[in-house]
Amino acid sequence: MSVRIVALGGGHGLYATLSAARRLTPHVTAIVTVADDGGSSGRLRSELDIVPPGDLRMALAALASDSPHGRLWATIIQHRFGGSGALAGHPIGNLMLAGLNEVLADPVAALDELGRILGVKGRVLPMCPMGLSIEADVAGLESDPRVSRAIRGQVAIATTVGKVRRVRLLPGDPPATHQAVDAIMDADLVVLGPGSWFTSVIPHVLVPQLVAALQSTTARRALVLNLVAEPGETSGFSVERHIHVLAQHAPTFTVNDIIVDSSRVPSDRERDQLRRTATMLEARVEFADVCRPGTPLHDPARLAAALEGVLQRRAEGAAEGGSEGGTAPTGTPHAVPTPTVNRPRGDDPWR
Amino acid sequence: MSVRIVALGGGHGLYATLSAARRLTPHVTAIVTVADDGGSSGRLRSELDIVPPGDLRMALAALASDSPHGRLWATIIQHRFGGSGALAGHPIGNLMLAGLNEVLADPVAALDELGRILGVKGRVLPMCPMGLSIEADVAGLESDPRVSRAIRGQVAIATTVGKVRRVRLLPGDPPATHQAVDAIMDADLVVLGPGSWFTSVIPHVLVPQLVAALQSTTARRALVLNLVAEPGETSGFSVERHIHVLAQHAPTFTVNDIIVDSSRVPSDRERDQLRRTATMLEARVEFADVCRPGTPLHDPARLAAALEGVLQRRAEGAAEGGSEGGTAPTGTPHAVPTPTVNRPRGDDPWR
Repeated sequence: MSVRIVALGGGHGLYATLSAARRLTPHVTAIVTVADDGGSSGRLRSELDIVPPGDLRMALAALASDSPHGRLWATIIQHRFGGSGALAGHPIGNLMLAGLNEVLADPVAALDELGRILGVKGRVLPMCPMGLSIEADVAGLESDPRVSRAIRGQVAIATTVGKVRRVRLLPGDPPATHQAVDAIMDADLVVLGPGSWFTSVIPHVLVPQLVAALQSTTARRALVLNLVAEPGETSGFSVERHIHVLAQHAPTFTVNDIIVDSSRVPSDRERDQLRRTATMLEARVEFADVCRPGTPLHDPARLAAALEGVLQRRAEGAAEGGSEGGTAPTGTPHAVPTPTVNRPRGDDPWR
Repeated sequence: MSVRIVALGGGHGLYATLSAARRLTPHVTAIVTVADDGGSSGRLRSELDIVPPGDLRMALAALASDSPHGRLWATIIQHRFGGSGALAGHPIGNLMLAGLNEVLADPVAALDELGRILGVKGRVLPMCPMGLSIEADVAGLESDPRVSRAIRGQVAIATTVGKVRRVRLLPGDPPATHQAVDAIMDADLVVLGPGSWFTSVIPHVLVPQLVAALQSTTARRALVLNLVAEPGETSGFSVERHIHVLAQHAPTFTVNDIIVDSSRVPSDRERDQLRRTATMLEARVEFADVCRPGTPLHDPARLAAALEGVLQRRAEGAAEGGSEGGTAPTGTPHAVPTPTVNRPRGDDPWR
């Protein structure tokens, strides 16, 4: 039986993960952030009060069937209207999702129906069944660098010249899409990231029901780090800082594996340091060549190989009753590796 | 083998014909006017320079499969965006057709692809592969009622308070969509009307290649008259006047049958008068109950019965070498009835 992979994220990062995951299994579920307020999605949200469709559309395109019809419709939904009129810049798929949502009055049903047209084998789900806003405490915008100012909106946060300290969702503690919770619970592998750290990755761990599912699933959980620090929201961030801010936003959240591109952490000294930082998430670190050479992009085939390695480790853990990093708790059907490294937050009830 | 029916028209009238024709055969082709400049179609034309999608979308919805998916997508493409923003009032199907046309750069390919999604068995074609304008000579707008003024645009013509004398297409003598010509040539029955007379019916006979195909096809040709005179373009028009203006616009165009609702021409005297007028088109007149009682709309089942009667007459003509109204010319594979009534325009080379 094919494995089930769930990928959480948004935008181009999620597109990369999905492009990798579909190489391993047809059972891929995307769980997508819903706080975008820019571009076509922003225009549609302000006009129609819908879940922002842009990241969802990207995920559908990533999972479209490789048949001629699937490829055609992937092209169609991604195509943006030209000209300089009212439609200019809107991808066709965003308008279709907006329309489907008006007719079906259910964002998940709308995604399932468009997914059917594209021949998507898996599923694309919003992390929350309503559109959310995101707000950040940003330092460096005042004369006193210790003072933070609240900045609201994904675009504003992603492009701030200040330093993002913390983000929160508005409304706070939003409900998770129940199908997303189910998908996490049924998964063999859950992948968070890569992507815009504060606006596409961290939002998922600010949804209590998603965090609870991530804590209680028997799936192996992997975090894929970005290849470069993004201008704007994570400008100048080290690899470690990405892990730090994630842990800071979700004190109970842990993963089994952190996948990082080898070239980003070349020296043994740096790798040891990263391994120490990874203990904050109780994770082992996988150094892998996942970059498409000469680009700042993940290569789908290489990322797929890295994810396959993670799945292999899960299987080994299940077979041997443990993994390189720990032992499985007695009585659990799937062995979940428990790192032997010091556990600063060893309060996870599901372990 | 199922018969092939081609329906020419636009708007709600064409929707009625298609709803009737699909009851008789899965092989239904719609050939649709392309001069609409109002509403969503007008907005899209001015923004994107496309064939106006509204009437095409209506025709697709009329031919959508009766499966759950077909019905769902018929609802979806007909749904108009709400709100008061840039999308308000646009049917989703219009935006999909506009987008498909941008991607595929071919209006017929765009229609075929959307038709596939709707499970359309037949085909929907624009009468011309480019958007056209329509211009009318309208009397009654000046103090001197003999003076006509040129009015341009389908909406302006359809709603004029003057009397429409004549319409023309801009550019004049436009090319026909070649697939539309092929469909007419391959048809068993071609149906023109009902619909807005000057803006949805007559435009077809202003396309030389369509008129030539209508003259040379072996299909039986039927004209379906409107149930009521439309406010605006045919305000106050008698049944006869509809036939007169059609003949005036297309001197070589003839039909075999004119279908008119019985209740519209109740007395024998009126019926005799209509039969005499019908000789202008070399047609016999079929008085049939085609109205949905209590409405000004054609009833699909009743119109289908009337069309079936016309097809039956064609079969009888083929079997007997003639029909009630005339005899078949020697040597033609399908017998085409030649009315014995006086032929004011007996110059049709195909007879």
